[in-house]
Amino acid sequence: MIGRLNHVAIAVRDIAAASQLYRGTLGATVSDPEALPEHGVTVVFITLPNTKIELLEPLGADSPIAKFLEKNPDGGMHHLCYEVDDIHAARDRLVKSGARVLGSGEPKIGAHGKPVLFLHPKDFNGTLIELEQA
Amino acid sequence: MIGRLNHVAIAVRDIAAASQLYRGTLGATVSDPEALPEHGVTVVFITLPNTKIELLEPLGADSPIAKFLEKNPDGGMHHLCYEVDDIHAARDRLVKSGARVLGSGEPKIGAHGKPVLFLHPKDFNGTLIELEQA
Repeated sequence: MIGRLNHVAIAVRDIAAASQLYRGTLGATVSDPEALPEHGVTVVFITLPNTKIELLEPLGADSPIAKFLEKNPDGGMHHLCYEVDDIHAARDRLVKSGARVLGSGEPKIGAHGKPVLFLHPKDFNGTLIELEQA
Repeated sequence: MIGRLNHVAIAVRDIAAASQLYRGTLGATVSDPEALPEHGVTVVFITLPNTKIELLEPLGADSPIAKFLEKNPDGGMHHLCYEVDDIHAARDRLVKSGARVLGSGEPKIGAHGKPVLFLHPKDFNGTLIELEQA
């Protein structure tokens, strides 16, 4: 069912400093920051030859990554995003197997403009998993 | 400098259960477990179209992931591995920029039989980074 690893998301406190670290120290291709107020984050994309790393900085009072950064003051890996062909078929398969889909259980439009779901980390070895219909 | 994302490593308590979760619930291609006593882990490879996920279960008394699982009882994302062309050139660039290389600072032979280095998570947004000479 799961296809490509679309991205690894890393939560950071200071996206400018983190961008400079990836651009300068690690020599990667790093985009300019993009504010996504409807998702509560500012995002930067690091393009690797085979996948992407996304840096996320909290934006606004209700950022979904604020609590994560309280628990992990240095930042850290926040979620993995796997691509699926059909998000509704994926959801039905997951629910049937007993896995918990976060929120209403209905796909939402994610930061890339595509339908996404998030799965409960307790059901997946402590890893927050995003599924994106590619 | 950094190239492909070679793998994302996820530490788990029970590699048989985690393998079944990825094989069954998520429908991925999962290898049989391989014991690597010299690295203190049992490993399973999940092959995605563009990269790999590695599941790591502690093996032996001095497993390098035992402490991580004490802090993260459900398991969780443990490290990211980026490929580099020349591990010594990468090391020199990192040290020059002030980043800390773990251990002796000399590349060791990693779980794939290739030279690797680990970088201090405090210097990289709370993310443990492995560099592997591809």
